[in-house]
Amino acid sequence: MAQAVDFWVSIGSTYSCLTVMRLPAVVRAAGVAVTWRPFDVRRIMLAQNNIPFRDKPVKAAYMWRDIERRAQRYGLNLRLPAPYPLAELTFANQVALVGCAEGWGAAYIREAYRLWFIEGLEPGQEPALGQALEAIGQDPARVLARARSAEVAARLEAETDRAMALGVFGAPSFVVGSEVFWGDDRLEDALDWARDGRLD
Amino acid sequence: MAQAVDFWVSIGSTYSCLTVMRLPAVVRAAGVAVTWRPFDVRRIMLAQNNIPFRDKPVKAAYMWRDIERRAQRYGLNLRLPAPYPLAELTFANQVALVGCAEGWGAAYIREAYRLWFIEGLEPGQEPALGQALEAIGQDPARVLARARSAEVAARLEAETDRAMALGVFGAPSFVVGSEVFWGDDRLEDALDWARDGRLD
Repeated sequence: MAQAVDFWVSIGSTYSCLTVMRLPAVVRAAGVAVTWRPFDVRRIMLAQNNIPFRDKPVKAAYMWRDIERRAQRYGLNLRLPAPYPLAELTFANQVALVGCAEGWGAAYIREAYRLWFIEGLEPGQEPALGQALEAIGQDPARVLARARSAEVAARLEAETDRAMALGVFGAPSFVVGSEVFWGDDRLEDALDWARDGRLD
Repeated sequence: MAQAVDFWVSIGSTYSCLTVMRLPAVVRAAGVAVTWRPFDVRRIMLAQNNIPFRDKPVKAAYMWRDIERRAQRYGLNLRLPAPYPLAELTFANQVALVGCAEGWGAAYIREAYRLWFIEGLEPGQEPALGQALEAIGQDPARVLARARSAEVAARLEAETDRAMALGVFGAPSFVVGSEVFWGDDRLEDALDWARDGRLD
């Protein structure tokens, strides 16, 4: 039987758009159980002095083009570059954490990415927050109040600490047992590992 | 007919070990013409403040494990971590440039990586330089004298400038027309693009 995969997802990561959009179909085909676990990737990256794009215009331009080419392969028509970096990354993931606790986390994260990468609306702030929650049938007032609570903020911190303890340093990451796989381009490696304990 | 691919290779890049080892078979299967073009990736990365591993121990540890897992998939049994970073990166690539001008560049680069990642001998200095050249039937004294010449040093600088002008910011990179593909994990994307002008 395949091992379980934890998908460490952080709204704010650009390449995660590809993963979030293609994950349901890929996972269904692979027959592997995947748990979505929102965290605050920015806190880890700042702590580790890992700044991939902000002061690197050539690498950043490449990143957008690489995402565009790969999105086309996956049949996604994105509007690039999307707003970046996000002002409200942490809050966007607090909402995602509420969603994962209540069973609609993946739907919210996908809608947040759709609004962000197709409509150009930045996650974690209005109007994206309200639109995303309404689109998936959630009450924005109730959810946003819960997401703002000290309890949820503390839980996102704890999840982020847990990710860091596992060796996660970026997003998206996939953890299978003690193995970390980083990047949309390692999703298939992670699924291989979950099934076979090695890369096929 | 497929477009030509320039393989911008820089001895000193860790992930390039995977590319250098698997490229000949992959390229043969794809029926695409690939030109090996040595350059000095460190000069570009320093100019662009792009320091992926030196001050990032968690990411560096991940990099070795990621290479190890992927090497096993490709049937390579590496001794990791290999010495890193290289003290004589520039000179190692000056030798490679001489080799590419004389027709034995790919053979030298593969042998340099084999000695580095399997025997633990650091490229660009003895005993690796002499051993690599002897293994591929070249006279170390003649080659090393030529590689040390001002003409070859200037040519590596010019090639590095050319890479930078094309948008290359890391190694390995593959350039097809105006498209840059970065990383061993983008080799297949580059070959797709060379054949079809899109990712399959």
